[in-house]
Amino acid sequence: MVSKNQIKLITSLQQKKYRISNQLFFAEGVKVIQELLQSNFELEHLYTTQFDFEEVSSVKKSLIHENDLKKISALATPNSCLAVFKIPQEKEIINSGLIIALDDIRDPGNLGTILRLCDWFGIKQVVCSKETVDIYNPKVVQATMGSITRVCVAYVNLEEYISQTKLPVFGTFMDGENVYKSSLSQEGVIVMGNEANGISEGIENLIKNRISIPRFGDLQKTESLNVATATAIILSEFKRNLS
Amino acid sequence: MVSKNQIKLITSLQQKKYRISNQLFFAEGVKVIQELLQSNFELEHLYTTQFDFEEVSSVKKSLIHENDLKKISALATPNSCLAVFKIPQEKEIINSGLIIALDDIRDPGNLGTILRLCDWFGIKQVVCSKETVDIYNPKVVQATMGSITRVCVAYVNLEEYISQTKLPVFGTFMDGENVYKSSLSQEGVIVMGNEANGISEGIENLIKNRISIPRFGDLQKTESLNVATATAIILSEFKRNLS
Repeated sequence: MVSKNQIKLITSLQQKKYRISNQLFFAEGVKVIQELLQSNFELEHLYTTQFDFEEVSSVKKSLIHENDLKKISALATPNSCLAVFKIPQEKEIINSGLIIALDDIRDPGNLGTILRLCDWFGIKQVVCSKETVDIYNPKVVQATMGSITRVCVAYVNLEEYISQTKLPVFGTFMDGENVYKSSLSQEGVIVMGNEANGISEGIENLIKNRISIPRFGDLQKTESLNVATATAIILSEFKRNLS
Repeated sequence: MVSKNQIKLITSLQQKKYRISNQLFFAEGVKVIQELLQSNFELEHLYTTQFDFEEVSSVKKSLIHENDLKKISALATPNSCLAVFKIPQEKEIINSGLIIALDDIRDPGNLGTILRLCDWFGIKQVVCSKETVDIYNPKVVQATMGSITRVCVAYVNLEEYISQTKLPVFGTFMDGENVYKSSLSQEGVIVMGNEANGISEGIENLIKNRISIPRFGDLQKTESLNVATATAIILSEFKRNLS
């Protein structure tokens, strides 16, 4: 059973301010929940329609009716389970290797997909501007497919961060150097810009290495790549020689 | 003004069966609508909240109240305009150059993003299995950002198509040859598989060139890439030496 108060609390976690005040977030679906359980995330409570998750103590687990799951789910078609976790303390930023910096990424699906990409390419650290969508937004958690347990995400004043880093800073622009012909280091901060406006001016001024993904289609019309697919291509280029 | 019948017709176009029976689809937002107007798509009717689109004759244009736009829109936050277009006749498949073949891509955002990628990389033809999401689904149209006007999409019996093509056929698998070290031709069919199940068995058996995107993260845990980001990396590899 799930009480009215629990339903109210969990649905409130769809909003950032309630995630912050409660220091809780939730995840849905067996795969993501299992990955969170196997990592350092601390479970608050698990709601499941089935007699599964034997590894979870009965104190922290409730059987829930499908209709109630619908009430607390953020999905149009709810999964069989939803778990509330504590938001962990932000870790110190890992200032080595390749770091992805996100300048106001607003779409939850994009952030989730970028995290999944970072996981694939062995990127340990993502640094986000304060205006970037919250990593504990349920749609982001969903789209990460579990990568949220393996990639560290920090929210910072991005302009300040970029101005202070000792690592080389790369940014993607329409007029940058052909990324396929650039010499790309294995240490550095790669800045990806907002979906509509690209990299903001203050940050652009701090970027020494302007790179660009060449366009092969109609030069007049094809306008831009989605930020997640652009990140895929850039990370692939940085890493391909190591394979 | 928009009549009750028009509202009923337009909302019905969110469903494939009504798009087929009416041979109509709709697009939302100034950018996408403008690209469709400038291409060969035939406008049925445009609904806009503003006195814009001067190029459209007044017979084919209605001013619409925001509240009515909400009723016909497929978006949570409607744009300022929505336009209904005729579904054009399917063109003959262009059997040269690089072709992307989609084996049951179900997510509208993925199909739209893949079309946008094809546009960027100069791919003219996409061939989809019959089970792939419909290109005229409003969410797909939206995600293409106008690329729908520049990339041809055909729905076919994919197994039959692959078995008959004279072009080399490539497919992405977990155990394929490292794509960064493969010799990639500039002609061929590149098969991308379903989000959950990958490439189906019948089609897998027809694929001679098995390629793979190397993984740099935790080999035990990182499971897969999103199909759109995988397509981005693959297309980038096929094209990079031409830049």
